[in-house]
Amino acid sequence: MTGRVLEVFCAEDAADRFSDLIDSARGRGVRVSMVTARAMRSLADTVTPSGIVALCPTLVREPGREIADSAGARPVRLVAVGQALAEPGNVGTLIRVSDALGADAVWLTEGSVDPENPKAVRSSAGSLFHLPVVRGVAESELVARAHTSGLQLAVATADGEVDIERADEILSRPTAWVFGNEAHGVPAALAAAADVRVRIPIRGRAESLNIVTAASICLHTSARLQGVGS
Amino acid sequence: MTGRVLEVFCAEDAADRFSDLIDSARGRGVRVSMVTARAMRSLADTVTPSGIVALCPTLVREPGREIADSAGARPVRLVAVGQALAEPGNVGTLIRVSDALGADAVWLTEGSVDPENPKAVRSSAGSLFHLPVVRGVAESELVARAHTSGLQLAVATADGEVDIERADEILSRPTAWVFGNEAHGVPAALAAAADVRVRIPIRGRAESLNIVTAASICLHTSARLQGVGS
Repeated sequence: MTGRVLEVFCAEDAADRFSDLIDSARGRGVRVSMVTARAMRSLADTVTPSGIVALCPTLVREPGREIADSAGARPVRLVAVGQALAEPGNVGTLIRVSDALGADAVWLTEGSVDPENPKAVRSSAGSLFHLPVVRGVAESELVARAHTSGLQLAVATADGEVDIERADEILSRPTAWVFGNEAHGVPAALAAAADVRVRIPIRGRAESLNIVTAASICLHTSARLQGVGS
Repeated sequence: MTGRVLEVFCAEDAADRFSDLIDSARGRGVRVSMVTARAMRSLADTVTPSGIVALCPTLVREPGREIADSAGARPVRLVAVGQALAEPGNVGTLIRVSDALGADAVWLTEGSVDPENPKAVRSSAGSLFHLPVVRGVAESELVARAHTSGLQLAVATADGEVDIERADEILSRPTAWVFGNEAHGVPAALAAAADVRVRIPIRGRAESLNIVTAASICLHTSARLQGVGS
């Protein structure tokens, strides 16, 4: 666990199985509370709880109440924006992918699923504790917000005027990438207001890319061209 | 629907809603059978059936009983291999991503979930009808199979000796990409037998990439460098 663990809860009938983990937590001064199997079922959101739960602070914040991003004193170079994402798994996976590919932060617009939704937390595979996530960002403020952070706002969209494979100069600039709602994509007004609209060529007969594929290719291209983390 | 529809089944209580679709199917000589709501529930697999189901042949085949790939007379240049994939959603999404990024075919090893699993079919978003999928490929035959098709076998793995961002010459060759089991990755023996092992740099603090992200970046890189579809 990367983040600071505030408290650990372990089901009484699972204490033997997790004795090493419990000793390790107690050794670091973390309080471990034994609970009944019934209490564990209400604490753990899954159908078959593993038997141990840790309470940890995430890096999720509201606009204006943000913490310093993981880049510390470095300038922000790469941000992923989830626009009205409806699937918790996509929100969590976007956070995981953003972490792995070197983004400095994730912003989620007002219409997106809460990143602390249990399924989103699990899909993030720990990355929710690795990089700052801002939720409840107004769509109308995205352009100004990006510019204030020294970023261009780029929208990933099937009909973008720029081909991601022929835009090395544009994409070597610090960028906030917008990935739109799974069913509707990015609203026309937001796309028009952005600095650039970028398409990923569809080579086969698929009608569209899923958001995880689009985010993976866009963030990887930006990180590669900007030399993020190198 | 891209594939040839063999027959359509519509729930009696949904006939009004789908009258355009039913007319269109009948206009093309496709038989449309009205069924009870109860029969629809057993046909449809989902908790809330939409009320209409089409019977279509997929492009899934066994090794040795394959059909010509979508590239037709063109040589095969890009194949995605799912090795012992356990999640139906990942199998379907791999097929969708492979289609969108221009792969000629998808091969699944013996240990992988069946691509005709209902959840895999839904996750493929129609791509199961777009490109040939071979299931039940023996892992021990992957190298020979790739070479017979004129492809190098590349394994995507965190500890690969080649950095995907510094291997333009290698990756501009026709390639079959192996993406390993979600929990265990590619077996050491298979990785050792492959022509090349390729890593995607992890820039943040995430421990690993999910398979959809890895496949998206690897296939996109190959398609870009080979000029697939251009």
